[in-house]
This record gives sequence, C-alpha cells and structure tokens, in this order.
Amino acid sequence: MSWILQAEDLAPIALGCAMLGSGGGGDTHCAIILLGELIRQGHRIPIVDPAHLATEEVILTVGYVGAPIVLAEKLLSGGEIVSAIDAMRDRLGRPIDALIASEIGGLNGMVPLIASAMTGLPVVDADGMGRAFPRGDQVTFSIYGHSSVPAVVAGEGGEVVIITAASNARSEELTRALSVQMGSKAFSIEYPLSGEDVRRHAIPRTLSLARAIGRAISGTIGAEARFEALASMLDRQWGIATRRLFAGRITACSRDTRGGFDRGMIEIAQSGTDGQLMRIAFQNEFLVAYRDDALIATTPDIISIVDADTFHPIHSEGIRYGQQVEVLAIEAPALLKTAEALHMVGPRAFGHDCDFQPIAALPA
Amino acid sequence: MSWILQAEDLAPIALGCAMLGSGGGGDTHCAIILLGELIRQGHRIPIVDPAHLATEEVILTVGYVGAPIVLAEKLLSGGEIVSAIDAMRDRLGRPIDALIASEIGGLNGMVPLIASAMTGLPVVDADGMGRAFPRGDQVTFSIYGHSSVPAVVAGEGGEVVIITAASNARSEELTRALSVQMGSKAFSIEYPLSGEDVRRHAIPRTLSLARAIGRAISGTIGAEARFEALASMLDRQWGIATRRLFAGRITACSRDTRGGFDRGMIEIAQSGTDGQLMRIAFQNEFLVAYRDDALIATTPDIISIVDADTFHPIHSEGIRYGQQVEVLAIEAPALLKTAEALHMVGPRAFGHDCDFQPIAALPA
Repeated sequence: MSWILQAEDLAPIALGCAMLGSGGGGDTHCAIILLGELIRQGHRIPIVDPAHLATEEVILTVGYVGAPIVLAEKLLSGGEIVSAIDAMRDRLGRPIDALIASEIGGLNGMVPLIASAMTGLPVVDADGMGRAFPRGDQVTFSIYGHSSVPAVVAGEGGEVVIITAASNARSEELTRALSVQMGSKAFSIEYPLSGEDVRRHAIPRTLSLARAIGRAISGTIGAEARFEALASMLDRQWGIATRRLFAGRITACSRDTRGGFDRGMIEIAQSGTDGQLMRIAFQNEFLVAYRDDALIATTPDIISIVDADTFHPIHSEGIRYGQQVEVLAIEAPALLKTAEALHMVGPRAFGHDCDFQPIAALPA
Repeated sequence: MSWILQAEDLAPIALGCAMLGSGGGGDTHCAIILLGELIRQGHRIPIVDPAHLATEEVILTVGYVGAPIVLAEKLLSGGEIVSAIDAMRDRLGRPIDALIASEIGGLNGMVPLIASAMTGLPVVDADGMGRAFPRGDQVTFSIYGHSSVPAVVAGEGGEVVIITAASNARSEELTRALSVQMGSKAFSIEYPLSGEDVRRHAIPRTLSLARAIGRAISGTIGAEARFEALASMLDRQWGIATRRLFAGRITACSRDTRGGFDRGMIEIAQSGTDGQLMRIAFQNEFLVAYRDDALIATTPDIISIVDADTFHPIHSEGIRYGQQVEVLAIEAPALLKTAEALHMVGPRAFGHDCDFQPIAALPA
C-alpha cells in the first residue's frame, strides 16, 4: 500500500523508529518538529510500497552521519540534501525515482522523509537494516552484494564529496572521516539501487511497522498494558515475536567513546537483595543482553530499554544511573538472520564471543 | 623553452627541488629511482614552457598528500594517479592538456613527472609555490583567486573521491582528512586552471630552476665553492639573491607533531664559547630564522639547512642533534611577496609576530 505522510503520523513513526533503533540511530524528536513544519508549509511526502517499484527505477539510500544533537538547527537550511541528491543524479546520469532509509532505527528512519519534502521524491516504505547498527555498511544492501558507491557526502558548508572505493567498508570509513571533518554534520547518499534490488533486499514496510509500533504503545497506559498491546499487535499483524526481558533500575554504565563509536556495558538490577542482574553490552546500539550471566538476547534481534513510566525508548547515550526501566526484545527480520548477514551483524561481528540466539526460541 | 626530461636531469632536479623545499615537500630520493625506471622503460616526459600554453588549455595541479616515507613502495602501482586524472577529465567534461606541480619544493616538485610518464600528458615548467608550504592552499593559484575544486583525491585502495567545497581552505581540510584515512598515501588533483591562469599566476620555469640549482651544486666541491657557484648562477641567470646565513652544529631541536603538521624550533651553534646562536622555527618547512635574536630570514624567502660536507639539503624531519650544517636563504619569487600573498604565506600566517623582511635587503 502506498500512502501520503500525514502530520499525525509523525509522533507514532518517531516513537516506532526509536523502539526499532535498539538504543541507536539518533534522537527522533527534532524530526517530528521539522517534518511537522514542512507538512504545514504544504510539502507532500509520498510513501511507496516496495512491491510497487518498477524494476528499472533508481532508488538512493539517505542517511545522516554524525552527532544527532546538532541536527535540529542544521536541517533548517537543508540545502545539503538537495545538493547531494543532485550530485548523485549528475554522476549517475539518470533521474532519481525514490529515496530509502539505510536504517529505520532512530532519526535515520526519518531523514528520507525530510529529503522527500525538500525534493518531492517519494520514500520507499522499507529500509536496509530493519533497526539501527553502528556502521553504515552493516546494511542488507551491502550484505547481499550491492555496491555503496558512487556515494555522496554533503556538509553544511556546501561541501559535496563524491566517493568511489573498492569496497563498501572503505567507502564507509571515508564517509565517517569526512563527517568528522564536516563537524559531525553530514548527509550521505549512497547505495544507488534498482527497484528490483530494493524489492529483493530491503526490509519491507518498516515505516508502516514503525508507525504501528508507535500507535500501539500510545494507545494505552501503563508498562504492562503497553507491552501487551505492542506484543499482540506485532504477533498478529506482523508475525514478529516480542519478549519482555527485565524490569529494574540502572545501577551502572561504563562507556568508552572512540573513533565515532560509543562502547560500553549497562547494569540493571531488580529491587531486593536477591534480585536478578541484567547486563547489556552496547556499541551505539544495545547488542547483547545477559540475565545473571545467561545470554537472553543477541544482535540482530532488537533490544530496547524503555522508561518504565512512559514506555519511551532510551537512547544508549541517554542511559543514566538510577533510571527505572523495562527491557524488551523484538525479533529481527529474516534477512538479518542468514549466515551471510550474521557474519556482518551477529554478536561476533562486534567482538562478542557468542552466537546469535533468536529470542523467538525463548519462552514467550 | 620546452624540453624532454632526460635520465641525467633527475638527480639535479631532485637536488634542486630539495633546496627549494625550505626543509619540506618530502624526500626526493625515491622519485629519482622511479622516474629513472620509467624513462628506461621508454616513457617520454615532455616539459612545456608556460609561455607556450594556449589560453584555453586545461591544466591540473598534481600533488602527493601524506607521508613521503611510504611513497616509494606505493608509486610502483601508480594506477591511482591515472584514475584521479580520468575522474577529473570526466567531471570537467573536457580533455586535460597538461599537468603542473602545486609546489616545486621536495618530492611534490617531481610527482607531476611521474604522472606524466603514466599518462603521456606534458608537465608545465612552473609551479604554484616556487618552494614548499605546509598547506596545499598556500599556493599562488589560491592567493590569486582560482578555485581548487573540483578536486580529486585518490588512494592506493582504488578510492577516488571528488570534492566540491565553498572555499579552498575547506577543500584542503577535507583532502587532508581523506589522506589520513587513506593511510597517508593519497594523490590530489586539483585547481583546474586555464593556460592563461597558469601564465598569469604560476611561478614560471621552476623545474628548470631546480635543475640549474642541482647542476650548480654538483659541479664543484666544498661548501664555500658550492655556495659561490649557486649564488653566482642564481644571481646572473635568474636575478635571484642568495645569502649564506650561518655555519654551525645542531644543538637542539624541539618538535610537536599534531594534525599532520610538524612544528618546532631548531638551534644551531657556532663552535667556541662566544660563538653565535641561530634559531630556526619550522612548521614542516623552515619559516623564520634568528641569529642571536636578530631576525635574518623570513617566509616566503626560502631557508635551507644543508649538510656542511655534501651541501645536500636536510629535510626538517631529518634534523638531528650534532649535525654540522650550513644555513642559506634564497629570495622568494615576486608573486609570493605581494600584500595578498604575504597574508597567506608571510610569518604572521604561521603565528609568528613579525613581518616579512626580504633577504635581498640584507648585505650580500
């Protein structure tokens, strides 16, 4: 189904993107404000179902590379996105038919909507991760053999840089270095794909999924009821398993920020002296969760830490001592669980000495 | 006069480029070996006088951005230069007519010769600095209003990156960041110029000048005789003043390496307890020289520290405690001494609280 984005879709999509972000992907709040303003100004943001893409259409992935905190002020100019898409069109020598998110998780799930408002191009209801991951090349398009180049990186100073490289990993490294040099405020336009590529290798309908998650959580009150509404909707309408892993208070968070990545370990304790302890390892995103040393959730399954009162997901950067939280896990899409995908996004890809254990195999 | 580069030109050009490098620009030794091999293989390297360029010709500056030490092994593949020039030709949509050095000083004075052997394009007998400077945008082409973009940066991994930016300084910063990410082994192709641009704003005939300097030094023996041969040749044939500033032993060198720049201070003492002391401040290149606290040479005039025995210039990275050296200064070309040039390459551009004082005004 194709649809036109409405102002009332923004808050649920932002909430759903945050939930799918597994603690990463950037804060979505500023995107609600900016997109609300763009829609009020009359910009129209068409969302197309990936099944409706023609084989020959040209689709570009759009993402923000940098520090989300600085995005709000910056997007208000927005000319960089347009320059970047124009540069890619000139380079490819073909008109661009649609945009797609590299990752639906967090802010990056909404960046293509902003680009759409500014260019008039439709956004495909799909993405390349079904969640968020630390690296831009941890994306199904790369896992399943598509090239990230030519890639364009654009900064707010008017810089437009076109990259070709022998591997997607090299292109990603150059993109990250450029973003730092651009003040950690850069847009990337990469992975020029055909309609057929997107139909085969994108995670389908994840904008709709994000909206459905946001609506389910917002439609009721209380952590228990919210989890039930979410899990029931995901199971019945999407066939996606959800698990409520833990409830407790943040008692520790160690963190080491290096090379643009934020790595660390979070500890969450149940109340009472004999309460259980949860530990969650993260690298921007929450990746591996243990309960009293038993492994209970692993990447690529999505681990979300939500505020116990509001059920709003907490970004890994926002984890603070003393927060009362719930931890839940959402089953990853099938395209992330093949052998070639797990090689790129499974626990060992992040240095963890364990294999992926699907939460769908845990008791509900 | 236009000419074809001969194998016997290589050693004098390398020596002259080192002398003009003012302590920077990279070691020229590996270029002698590589170019000798290319000439033996039958590659022809035509050198064209800038006065012979047609107004509409397209000339590209070529340079190496990175750590010279790793160049020897790397250039033997050489495909990056060709890829970079091809990318620029495609971007400009026009054939390229010739190449030019951004800086004649050090290795970078010879990189266009290597690119010429690999592409068949002639090299203009001229450059954009008449010496070497730390930053790629400290070049007459930038000083006199030409844009450095589109610029291409190419790495040995096959990466080709095309930059556009609102200022030459931004383009330079992005180029440096990319070079670091490419293992400090990158080529840059930038400042697409017309024949008229080069005729008006390049420092003319600096390849010929480098060769003449190398020949003058090599043609005799002993520091005194070598200096006399050099100074007399430069004065009579080129109208360039030269001064012998100091002779002594390196007694100290402090150094701070940061952000790709190597900054510090060298002390050179005459023998005897009442001997004079020379101090030379550097940032990759030797920039300002004091004798017993009196300022005696300032950028953009060229300051060279040469081995007292061999008269071979010592690179700023090669300065070591105990070396017996001679210090000489060579007058900078007029295009570096205008008010707009001194703003970019005079002492204050490097944080020194003094004005340019031409060595030509010192007693001979």
